[in-house]
Amino acid sequence: MHIPREEGRVVALCGGVGGAKLAFGLQKVLGSKLHVVINMADDFEHLGLHISPDLDTVLYTLGGLNDRQRGWGRADESWNFMEAIGQIGGETWFALGDRDLALHVERTRRLANGESLTQIVQDIARNFGITAHLWPVTDDPVRTVVVTPEEELAFQRYFVALRCEPAVRAIRFDGAESARLAKGVRDALQSEGLRMIIICPSNPFLSIDPILAAPGLREALRAADVPIVAVSPLVAGQAVKGPTRKIMDELQVEATTASIAAHYGDLIDGLVIDVGDVAEGAALSVAVHAAPTLMTDDESKIELARNVLAFGDALARTARKETR
Amino acid sequence: MHIPREEGRVVALCGGVGGAKLAFGLQKVLGSKLHVVINMADDFEHLGLHISPDLDTVLYTLGGLNDRQRGWGRADESWNFMEAIGQIGGETWFALGDRDLALHVERTRRLANGESLTQIVQDIARNFGITAHLWPVTDDPVRTVVVTPEEELAFQRYFVALRCEPAVRAIRFDGAESARLAKGVRDALQSEGLRMIIICPSNPFLSIDPILAAPGLREALRAADVPIVAVSPLVAGQAVKGPTRKIMDELQVEATTASIAAHYGDLIDGLVIDVGDVAEGAALSVAVHAAPTLMTDDESKIELARNVLAFGDALARTARKETR
Repeated sequence: MHIPREEGRVVALCGGVGGAKLAFGLQKVLGSKLHVVINMADDFEHLGLHISPDLDTVLYTLGGLNDRQRGWGRADESWNFMEAIGQIGGETWFALGDRDLALHVERTRRLANGESLTQIVQDIARNFGITAHLWPVTDDPVRTVVVTPEEELAFQRYFVALRCEPAVRAIRFDGAESARLAKGVRDALQSEGLRMIIICPSNPFLSIDPILAAPGLREALRAADVPIVAVSPLVAGQAVKGPTRKIMDELQVEATTASIAAHYGDLIDGLVIDVGDVAEGAALSVAVHAAPTLMTDDESKIELARNVLAFGDALARTARKETR
Repeated sequence: MHIPREEGRVVALCGGVGGAKLAFGLQKVLGSKLHVVINMADDFEHLGLHISPDLDTVLYTLGGLNDRQRGWGRADESWNFMEAIGQIGGETWFALGDRDLALHVERTRRLANGESLTQIVQDIARNFGITAHLWPVTDDPVRTVVVTPEEELAFQRYFVALRCEPAVRAIRFDGAESARLAKGVRDALQSEGLRMIIICPSNPFLSIDPILAAPGLREALRAADVPIVAVSPLVAGQAVKGPTRKIMDELQVEATTASIAAHYGDLIDGLVIDVGDVAEGAALSVAVHAAPTLMTDDESKIELARNVLAFGDALARTARKETR
């Protein structure tokens, strides 16, 4: 049976909050045709528990359980565990909500039991009623290390404990060179039945690069015979949230859509930029589509998802015309 | 410097709820002169966490943090973790409150880090403002196993999951024969500066026997040159709470203060019985003191503590007179 390309699978590469918002919109449009490949290099051990911040942000966001005011963690959360941990002299720099904690305790127990991160994430996703397929890029340990002028910092130390204050000189992904791409990721990227690949508007340096660092992933992306579309995380030259802009400055990369395009280079076929960055986009060497990229509610997430999909489909038609 | 015996240390052997109530009263009277030796054979692994029900009951009760309505766990507790664990398909038969969870997570982390149960309990006790010295009877693993006609059950399976429903044929303490008595327990039981030893009104079969099963403990009790006073857990022939009465029936032991006295045998010098059991107490071969043993508020706990201490002191004076 031939599946028309426009009804095929879509693979989205995704980090935390910003990327998860687009993944939410994509899931609303695509349902089970969406495969989300998620960064897990910000995972860490804390209080003896295995914490997976980006994976959980995607789980909560796609499950409709995320807190929209706070911007991270679960809605309707309570903090009694944290208060009690503080009372007995435990570490409190990383906030763990009472409901959120359930994921960390179950994940830690199941990992110790020999189950893979992928199995665990997919079971939780099913329990949350998530229709998209979620894939940690690898089940092997990869850890983001932020190199500052003074020291090397585990990612969450930099990101949460030090609130991104130290200047970033370099970013490293320990373990990436020996990590094995999860089989499900490799299968999802097979050309057969694939519609397009989307790089979500996550931080390119901290969220997307560790995904791209998994051996074989770049090759699999190149081998897939479909358009690859990135969505710029910048809105009018600024990051919506998080340290993208600050890090670009510190790495002496201009905070422009041109820099984002250059960062992904010939890996991508198209870049979706915010309507506020249109003047700049005209000068790019990659195909550009301008759309409102600020996702403030469900409608704007779905709208951006539709825009990105239409752009990808148009790129596919152009490519087919060119090869004819 | 000679310490008058009445100002010496008091060692109390203690299980969960009932024992902890008397320990609370004893702490109010004795402060740091109280050493509580606590059952840890009901400890178990659950959700990957090391749970210590009796130790935590003593910690919460002596710290004034226990829930008095519910009878177990912490006051002002919330249950959002449990709800979230259930949502992702985790086990929910053992209720863990959000605040309570902090102890289990920290204990598990610190045990994995090589710290002893004793160190951890004493640190938490300090953070809770507890003045008494708390001692798990051993830092080695001992686990209560309940033998029923159908199967052998880990204690919490029997106690919580099956609500004590299976008939008890025998009770075993796995690991007890190779457990090493904690050094602090041995030191606390030295005759020098010791006033008396109290066996709290805990379940003799499930809470006190596992303490007595630690190699060297019975010998240390016998060697200590002070009165040993047990408090009967029965009130007018009934257990206040928990399965004491049911287990006595199943083990074909009459639920009488005579049976409690016989159970402890020549280990004890005196038995405190409830005023409701007085008719029966007259026939016992051990010295008996009747007092109200139902502890419904702080005052009744302190009152019983004073009664037990006065009885022990009287036994010591009689013994000294006899040996003169």
